[in-house]
Amino acid sequence: MNEYLEFAIKIAKYAGKEILDNFNKQYKNNFKSDRTIVTEIDKKINHYLIEEVSKMYPTHSVIGEEEVNDNKSNYIWVCDPIDGTGMFTDKIPVSVFSLALVVDGIVEVGVVYDPYLDNMYTAIKGQGAYCNGEEIHVNDKHLGDLGYRLNYEMWNNAKYPTIDIVKELLPKVRISNIGSVARSCMSIATGNFSCDLFPGTSHGNCDIAASSLIVEEAGGRVTNFHGEKQLYDKDIDGAIITNGISHNEITEVVKKYIKK
Amino acid sequence: MNEYLEFAIKIAKYAGKEILDNFNKQYKNNFKSDRTIVTEIDKKINHYLIEEVSKMYPTHSVIGEEEVNDNKSNYIWVCDPIDGTGMFTDKIPVSVFSLALVVDGIVEVGVVYDPYLDNMYTAIKGQGAYCNGEEIHVNDKHLGDLGYRLNYEMWNNAKYPTIDIVKELLPKVRISNIGSVARSCMSIATGNFSCDLFPGTSHGNCDIAASSLIVEEAGGRVTNFHGEKQLYDKDIDGAIITNGISHNEITEVVKKYIKK
Repeated sequence: MNEYLEFAIKIAKYAGKEILDNFNKQYKNNFKSDRTIVTEIDKKINHYLIEEVSKMYPTHSVIGEEEVNDNKSNYIWVCDPIDGTGMFTDKIPVSVFSLALVVDGIVEVGVVYDPYLDNMYTAIKGQGAYCNGEEIHVNDKHLGDLGYRLNYEMWNNAKYPTIDIVKELLPKVRISNIGSVARSCMSIATGNFSCDLFPGTSHGNCDIAASSLIVEEAGGRVTNFHGEKQLYDKDIDGAIITNGISHNEITEVVKKYIKK
Repeated sequence: MNEYLEFAIKIAKYAGKEILDNFNKQYKNNFKSDRTIVTEIDKKINHYLIEEVSKMYPTHSVIGEEEVNDNKSNYIWVCDPIDGTGMFTDKIPVSVFSLALVVDGIVEVGVVYDPYLDNMYTAIKGQGAYCNGEEIHVNDKHLGDLGYRLNYEMWNNAKYPTIDIVKELLPKVRISNIGSVARSCMSIATGNFSCDLFPGTSHGNCDIAASSLIVEEAGGRVTNFHGEKQLYDKDIDGAIITNGISHNEITEVVKKYIKK
């Protein structure tokens, strides 16, 4: 898996340079039919990944948020070229590149790169989580502790009403919605944030496959909105990402607002 | 007022260096009695401002979020040394320094500095708004237009339930909660964001005095939560900050959730 990790880091560095080089450009009329945003930079990074995988691992598949190359392999590179594209075009420096190697639905290698702070987050299953080579760990805060940060994402037509869940949890947390779930997950993995609620379903695996491994290897826990483990070679069913401590308590609140 | 602007820029550069130099430190147990956070860096910047004002303009007053020097002057320097302290300690690079010269309650000079992107936002009343010397303008999006970004702040015990307001507006906007109202206001002034809802009251003038002038000089509009102009030499009554286009429509929604 080390070779795969090195490959993923190479792609991440390419992506980070593209993100930085194009950060100050103006983006207009880049909306997809679901009113979410995409830029030429997302597409360029996604296509570069597909080309590089084709060269290095021609039997592998790629599921990118903007482009897919389906070789019917059980080795799938799952990628979000820019997680937080809206923040990228709005010039808030929180977007990241995310790439995972998923084998039979299980994330074996994960890389998330924050080009603004030059932080390369990496994990191989069973071998811990790292930022720029230094081991990272989740914090030990309980729900209700001072400074417990719950980040969440929410958009019109999201399947799950995270805004209602957050409202109920508000007395016990500090909230934020920074616009990139993967960046938020890295803040959980490094012990700064404590929880993230992500209502993503369609293509949601692209957003959080890599992050799910990095958070788990840093000592945290990741489930769907029903509190169950899930696979990352297909659409997901929301994601609850925590430092592992109050996961069940949060899941019980989440369940009040959703139906299975 | 140009002399005052130069003075404010000097303080902003000092603050920016402090913010950057201390970004990677670990902060623990920095909570105030209201569960908000403060660090030594906020206090140091605030105190530096008071010392510099005492030297240069000994008759002027200072209202800082962390320290006040009340000389009973009608010239008041209103400052938030780090707007977004929670994000500063959580290592999300969105916090800014904010300083305004308020005369008889009216903001005459405003400076907001984003040290991460090295963006110095400035305005003198009646003379336009600038970022690093280039004139900036709000965008021309209407509520409901693709890409209309509404940012908001919300915390436990906030006077106004922005989370309920945001929920009603959700079909017409993209939401975020980046953790610094002043940074969000600068995104409005540069045409990236379109609206911000800030439920601040006590010390809320420190957060948005400078931003209110910069947004207005960039073509936007700023009122309290009742849709009225307000003074910035004392506590405020929330703030609706927009590009000026859908301000009344948003204010009508806000009014449904508050009582005068």
